[in-house]
Amino acid sequence: MVSLPPDKSPADLTPVQLRILCRAGSLSSPTAGYARGFAQANLVVLPVEHADAFARFCKANPKPCPLLEVLPPGAFEPVRCAPGADLRTDLPRYRVLEHGRCVQWPTDVTPLWRPDFVAFLIGCSFTFEWALSALGVPVRHVEEGRNVPMFRTDRPCVSVPPFAGPLVVSMRPLTPADAKRAAHITAAFPDVHGGPVHAGDPAALGIGDLSHPHYGDAVTIKPGEIPVFWACGVTPMEAILAARLPLAITHEPGHMFVTDIPNEALRRESPE
Amino acid sequence: MVSLPPDKSPADLTPVQLRILCRAGSLSSPTAGYARGFAQANLVVLPVEHADAFARFCKANPKPCPLLEVLPPGAFEPVRCAPGADLRTDLPRYRVLEHGRCVQWPTDVTPLWRPDFVAFLIGCSFTFEWALSALGVPVRHVEEGRNVPMFRTDRPCVSVPPFAGPLVVSMRPLTPADAKRAAHITAAFPDVHGGPVHAGDPAALGIGDLSHPHYGDAVTIKPGEIPVFWACGVTPMEAILAARLPLAITHEPGHMFVTDIPNEALRRESPE
Repeated sequence: MVSLPPDKSPADLTPVQLRILCRAGSLSSPTAGYARGFAQANLVVLPVEHADAFARFCKANPKPCPLLEVLPPGAFEPVRCAPGADLRTDLPRYRVLEHGRCVQWPTDVTPLWRPDFVAFLIGCSFTFEWALSALGVPVRHVEEGRNVPMFRTDRPCVSVPPFAGPLVVSMRPLTPADAKRAAHITAAFPDVHGGPVHAGDPAALGIGDLSHPHYGDAVTIKPGEIPVFWACGVTPMEAILAARLPLAITHEPGHMFVTDIPNEALRRESPE
Repeated sequence: MVSLPPDKSPADLTPVQLRILCRAGSLSSPTAGYARGFAQANLVVLPVEHADAFARFCKANPKPCPLLEVLPPGAFEPVRCAPGADLRTDLPRYRVLEHGRCVQWPTDVTPLWRPDFVAFLIGCSFTFEWALSALGVPVRHVEEGRNVPMFRTDRPCVSVPPFAGPLVVSMRPLTPADAKRAAHITAAFPDVHGGPVHAGDPAALGIGDLSHPHYGDAVTIKPGEIPVFWACGVTPMEAILAARLPLAITHEPGHMFVTDIPNEALRRESPE
């Protein structure tokens, strides 16, 4: 019987403790703010026949798809990001995609795992949000207890067949002064989407209505604030859906893999 | 997206917050110590044809099976214990029993629910453990972060066919002085198993080896301590397994229904 201790908040869990709770089937929650201080990652799992094309898609589109680790075929222990972890069980919830449709939302994909699966871990903006908060830049959706608003843009990714699709961005409203600081702070974290792709005019990205995000929740934009847009980890999921592969597995959005990598370790001395 | 806030410990959740997390599929953990101060309950769900016999079994065996609420056929809102709650979704995990075997451990039984189901809520010892701790009587398995050790005894329950089986007891080791205090404290809570059924000699209950419980985990018995035995909510589950009904649903042991009833409200002025 493994449970989150009654007097311990999720923020105070170590990555190992959090992964054990997921593995035991005791925790299947979104992970924003959990195991504070450690990088979280997007998961993509594909049959090996598509792995090479997907790796090239990521490398051709590094802002939305920053690769943290690619595992050998069949492997489920991410020895670089979290030695001892098991990617089949240690996320709170998964999506199983068949032919471009989500057919299952399990908490354990061990029964589906195949020796020809290749797992990819991709950086997640929770790390740069931590850096923004730490330096006093407000993160609106966290303040409002919501999921970050995300939008499809009219900018296509560099296509590597069968993978193609629009760049998806997340949006955080900031004052022009904070937007400038945020751009500087996040540029130092290229492994988790880096600096913004645009600030100011949604129409420049082909986005019509900021109050109706394609994913996540709308947030308040205060007078004098401008929308700031970052490349988003939903981009690779859109590309996988568009490829209509017979089978793929991802994390359930927001329900990330928590690595052993301190956020701070992802800061680069000479940013992008 | 519903998640346990990063900075809130499970003990500090309200019962409504905890049930919403279960309903959203975000929390499927054992509940000991969660939503501190509120009574938790065992769940039994049976087709109406067996409901009357099971109610009589509980009334004939009130120490192991103290009924908190019996719902009308088909109903899933326990209006006495937790108005607005939904027994199909609001527990962290369930057991589905078919012909005396556990066949599924789902986190939501809505797809299985039938208009002829009758739900029973039965008191749980977590309430009297709260009372023991509050008065300074140590609870060993909580101190050791384990599940309480439970044992089948050689005492049969009063049988109401098809329901029959042994009395199951939980064991807590205490000094003789603490055992006396614990007996007094718990006798004031008849709706959650009340006072001990025996203290001292395991053989008097037909229990051979305290280091190998039938359910839960073994705990340390220190020199000078005696084992104290209370009637246990696993008793009705054993009776349901023994009855080999085609279909029944219970909570997964330790994964209880959290009610809106303050523990304190279950204290009786004139105990048993």
